[in-house]
Amino acid sequence: MTAYKLLLLPGDGIGREVMAQVTTVIGALAETGLASFETETDLVGGSSIDAHGVPLTDAALARADAADAILLGAVGGPKWSGVAYDIRPEAGLLRLRKDLGLFANLRPAICYPALADASALKRELVEGLDIMIVRELTGGVYFGEPKEITTLPDGTKRAVDTQVYTTGEIERIAHVAFDLARKRSGRVASAEKHNVMKSGVLWKEVVTKVHAEHYSDVELEHVLADNCAMQLVRRPKQFDVLVTDNLFGDVLSDVAAMLTGSLGMLPSASLGAVDSKGSRKALYEPVHGSAPDIAGQDLANPLAMIGSLAMALRYSFGLGEAADLLDGAITDALAAGARTKDIAGEGATPLGTAGMGEAVVAAL
Amino acid sequence: MTAYKLLLLPGDGIGREVMAQVTTVIGALAETGLASFETETDLVGGSSIDAHGVPLTDAALARADAADAILLGAVGGPKWSGVAYDIRPEAGLLRLRKDLGLFANLRPAICYPALADASALKRELVEGLDIMIVRELTGGVYFGEPKEITTLPDGTKRAVDTQVYTTGEIERIAHVAFDLARKRSGRVASAEKHNVMKSGVLWKEVVTKVHAEHYSDVELEHVLADNCAMQLVRRPKQFDVLVTDNLFGDVLSDVAAMLTGSLGMLPSASLGAVDSKGSRKALYEPVHGSAPDIAGQDLANPLAMIGSLAMALRYSFGLGEAADLLDGAITDALAAGARTKDIAGEGATPLGTAGMGEAVVAAL
Ligand SMILES: CC(C)[C@H](C(=O)O)[C@@H](O)C(=O)O
Ligand SMILES: CC(C)[C@H](C(=O)O)[C@@H](O)C(=O)O
Repeated sequence: MTAYKLLLLPGDGIGREVMAQVTTVIGALAETGLASFETETDLVGGSSIDAHGVPLTDAALARADAADAILLGAVGGPKWSGVAYDIRPEAGLLRLRKDLGLFANLRPAICYPALADASALKRELVEGLDIMIVRELTGGVYFGEPKEITTLPDGTKRAVDTQVYTTGEIERIAHVAFDLARKRSGRVASAEKHNVMKSGVLWKEVVTKVHAEHYSDVELEHVLADNCAMQLVRRPKQFDVLVTDNLFGDVLSDVAAMLTGSLGMLPSASLGAVDSKGSRKALYEPVHGSAPDIAGQDLANPLAMIGSLAMALRYSFGLGEAADLLDGAITDALAAGARTKDIAGEGATPLGTAGMGEAVVAAL
Repeated sequence: MTAYKLLLLPGDGIGREVMAQVTTVIGALAETGLASFETETDLVGGSSIDAHGVPLTDAALARADAADAILLGAVGGPKWSGVAYDIRPEAGLLRLRKDLGLFANLRPAICYPALADASALKRELVEGLDIMIVRELTGGVYFGEPKEITTLPDGTKRAVDTQVYTTGEIERIAHVAFDLARKRSGRVASAEKHNVMKSGVLWKEVVTKVHAEHYSDVELEHVLADNCAMQLVRRPKQFDVLVTDNLFGDVLSDVAAMLTGSLGMLPSASLGAVDSKGSRKALYEPVHGSAPDIAGQDLANPLAMIGSLAMALRYSFGLGEAADLLDGAITDALAAGARTKDIAGEGATPLGTAGMGEAVVAAL
């Protein structure tokens, strides 16, 4: 059995706690004989700033580049809120995304039946919800230049960020979205603001062209990003695959994730281009953040992190059987009543982070 | 009694129908002797494109500049979706905002008790909701230069939009937010993405400074825009005044409006700076759009438009008594069971646009 090279980057806050559960699960998977990994661990984010003065060292980046897949916990926290822009914890994550070319961020927003009541939305609006947000991740306003603050002659300041998109960047993310739609219910909604942004004009034009030339079997709808945010709240089940740019994707995917009532349950994948050998760089991480308010208290839900491992098994290693087994163990653990605090109903006695990890391992 | 100069810009789609009800209400108000207006009407958006080839003529802009206040219906529709970027219907609205210096967009998100069940959210999460979103409206990515699409040497394209904010632009919107908070529950949340945007860094810095220097009696919280969108869905009542930039404000205010279940009920005000004579330019419009799908069918809810007139009475003309009377008439009409289709429960026989206008006039 091939031993896949997996780089673990726990990061900060609850990232460290949920990653600890992944390590346990990896051990249990190895025992099944279905999947075996060589794991390495390194620092990213605030913990890397503390140790090395930068949120990602060149050595860590080289390890990430050499790995078959990367699992990341979460980065950031109030401890580093005063640090300069360029060494903030998030810069490590952004560098990983950019330098590894992880342009396609897949964020499933799934409402687990057992958890529908945890949603802020009425049950009938979210029951059965299954949206796949496809967010462009290496372009747009996150990376465009100029990106600077200058001082004006009168001593006040002027800040600039630049949203840039090229035809090629939009084409490749559109392909990812349409390909996914084909394996799902065959519908793509593309969100932008072509009414106020030139990048929105180009976005709409290129998505329309890719659709017309290659995917006439898929249904395409264009939606303005502000209206899309509204529709996600009003009637989320109208969406299947939703493709959008880096900044709108950041906000819309968070709204979609929150709707499910299962924020602590949702994994994500960030994928690069397929290379000549048929493989692609990939980073898997929970949708939730580092949650400094509950860090270190054995309160975090590790299922998004464990689900991220399942996504890695499926998308990076072609280990569908092992992925099914792991996803099944998560479902079984939930069905058996295992709940962390975030998804426990009132009055229930929830499990801690480690307890939930054990429940999954027991169900394996 | 002074006759105030009011410019009516019905615009497109349901904008025309809801504005017709304002005209009726204005007539009724004049009869009460509380408020009298000289009204003019002009074109904006698609209807102006059809008539003049541009979404706002210089003559209409001059009228807007000379008016004491402007009431706008809504702009846009599929009929003009193919037109070039610079003559799209929305360009007329953007020119009004920019050329009249309407930098402060106030968007109340209020959940009317009678309508709480129309919300997608569970009743207890939205009952009593009363948020004031303060959106910066004349800066940021909507207007920054460069804003262009260029053709690259290989024939593909590159689109650029530029997010620009200066200290002065952020200061003045911060003052608006803090001043409003003092009259409300004394809390401001400021949303940006300082972790990925330099404009977010400056935004946070300037808001913090304005707060420290002038408003230590107000409570200030900084929140990342993506998390803010989540929190709006999860627990919206945690917010009172929410101040943010043009683009985030576009999305967040739409989410907040949708939460209330009262989208057809929500007015907005866009205000300029106070001049040496103590007056300020102001445009009032519903939060909802032109809703082409229901236009011309006597289905639109005119209450957001009528409520926009009430806001004008209050904020532009100091006619608090007339504003109270009008707001009271809206409340009474609702209490008496008047409902348009969007807010009618199942099985109810709703009123049309004109019927609802009459119900308000009857209650005056
Ligand atoms: C941590 C931050 C830089 C990041 C982003 O804005 O992309 C996060 O919000 C996310 O969505 O992954
Ligand atoms: C019509 C459009 C240009 C406008 C905007 O994006 O500002 C609208 O969505 C709004 O929020 O008023």
